[in-house]
Amino acid sequence: MTNIHSITSPQNQHIKNWKKLQTKKGRFQRQELFIEGEHLILEAIKAKQPFLALIIAEDAKVEIQDLKNHTYLSEIDVYYVSPSIFQTLTETNHPQGLAAVIKLPTFKLDEIWSSEAEGLYLLLDAIQDPGNLGTIIRTAEAAGVRAVFLGEGTVDPFNAKVVRSAMGSLFRVPLLDVDLTQIIPLLEQKRITVMGTSPHAGTFHYNYSYARQCAILLGNEARGVQPALLEQIDQTVQIPMLGQTESLNVSVTASVLLYEYVRQVHMASRM
Amino acid sequence: MTNIHSITSPQNQHIKNWKKLQTKKGRFQRQELFIEGEHLILEAIKAKQPFLALIIAEDAKVEIQDLKNHTYLSEIDVYYVSPSIFQTLTETNHPQGLAAVIKLPTFKLDEIWSSEAEGLYLLLDAIQDPGNLGTIIRTAEAAGVRAVFLGEGTVDPFNAKVVRSAMGSLFRVPLLDVDLTQIIPLLEQKRITVMGTSPHAGTFHYNYSYARQCAILLGNEARGVQPALLEQIDQTVQIPMLGQTESLNVSVTASVLLYEYVRQVHMASRM
Repeated sequence: MTNIHSITSPQNQHIKNWKKLQTKKGRFQRQELFIEGEHLILEAIKAKQPFLALIIAEDAKVEIQDLKNHTYLSEIDVYYVSPSIFQTLTETNHPQGLAAVIKLPTFKLDEIWSSEAEGLYLLLDAIQDPGNLGTIIRTAEAAGVRAVFLGEGTVDPFNAKVVRSAMGSLFRVPLLDVDLTQIIPLLEQKRITVMGTSPHAGTFHYNYSYARQCAILLGNEARGVQPALLEQIDQTVQIPMLGQTESLNVSVTASVLLYEYVRQVHMASRM
Repeated sequence: MTNIHSITSPQNQHIKNWKKLQTKKGRFQRQELFIEGEHLILEAIKAKQPFLALIIAEDAKVEIQDLKNHTYLSEIDVYYVSPSIFQTLTETNHPQGLAAVIKLPTFKLDEIWSSEAEGLYLLLDAIQDPGNLGTIIRTAEAAGVRAVFLGEGTVDPFNAKVVRSAMGSLFRVPLLDVDLTQIIPLLEQKRITVMGTSPHAGTFHYNYSYARQCAILLGNEARGVQPALLEQIDQTVQIPMLGQTESLNVSVTASVLLYEYVRQVHMASRM
């Protein structure tokens, strides 16, 4: 049976603990994630994330029965809180009034390698904008990426804005914090070709024949990929740019490169 | 010679007029645009936008001489204002302290048609997120798009967030407010094929042979393209999606479709 609680004091220890989940440090220390809204909660259920609490604002138009019908949530602790307390838990201006606390998703390096002939990976060097990171994770799942490696300086993927723009992909795409200078040799040792972009590469991305085991390295919004990392990788390509644009948004670069892989590998599979 | 002014009162008529440029209505009535930061101002100069005023916060670390060296700005009115007045003009939290007022870019429908064999166009049906619209305009320029048609319900392209994410492309890509139900027959009359996406199209975008005169229709973030518009167009395609993603971000869809056009047309040109 579901356990129903009512919290009336902002000083309640649960409230204090949940507020800590607004910072990277708090999420890491507690190994918990605060997620908001029915859509994301349903995605977390589908992905079988362990739930710790369901939090509902007293004025929320939420059919608790709809959620309880998921046998998954049948034993969960449900906390009703006042709208003003709910507002202190969220960074959203007009919250839906429905949230949950789940275990922070974690992935292990040795679980992500593919035993299949095809394998696509992403390496991110200091992507700083949360919207960009979220969009990249969402697109990565759609393109069949097996893991996203997050280099130093990359925004925390469990930042609320990343979670919102990644939609449910955050629960399904393995994300690993790594030292890129160490992961690149490891990938090459596993015969995974590492490619990246450079404005002077001389080869357009669609004239490059992607390896079926391939990792794509993307760089920071302002400075691109660190030169030291570019030296470590196997191949650079460039995306043609007409007009007077100096660069593309990094989530656009990711999309174009990932879907050129999908096109080439799909074409190859049909032969 | 440059005319230097100093504004000390927040009630000054210029300040009142410039504040009006924060709303779509104000921008439209005055036919003016307030732009911020050195980078965007230099882009506006390169694009030969008519400048009406340069506005500098007294504490800004701006080398006015650098800007005056552009003969373009040699006759401009320069207004020094206090940091607190400058802050009231901007929606940025940490403004650089340098802004300009320029004429609102306008484009006419009969100027945008290409007389060349290749011509790429975008049609946007109610794109609501300013970051998405800005990214689409920036990517459109890079992919060689000749004009972006903005259907009803699309966010104003001169919204400050759109201007920021479009970078300078806003001054270079013709943007036109249109009734999409009327522009689609007009495009077809001009032998420009109109394509769009549908999750059930049955043809992957890379298996579709793009027409060299091509317009791509993209839809609202939540509901996609209106069914009535989909019925008007020549062809729908779908972007393959692996994993459990239900959709792609609309700026990602734009990027993938635009760069598949670039790939196919570039390949064709080489033959």
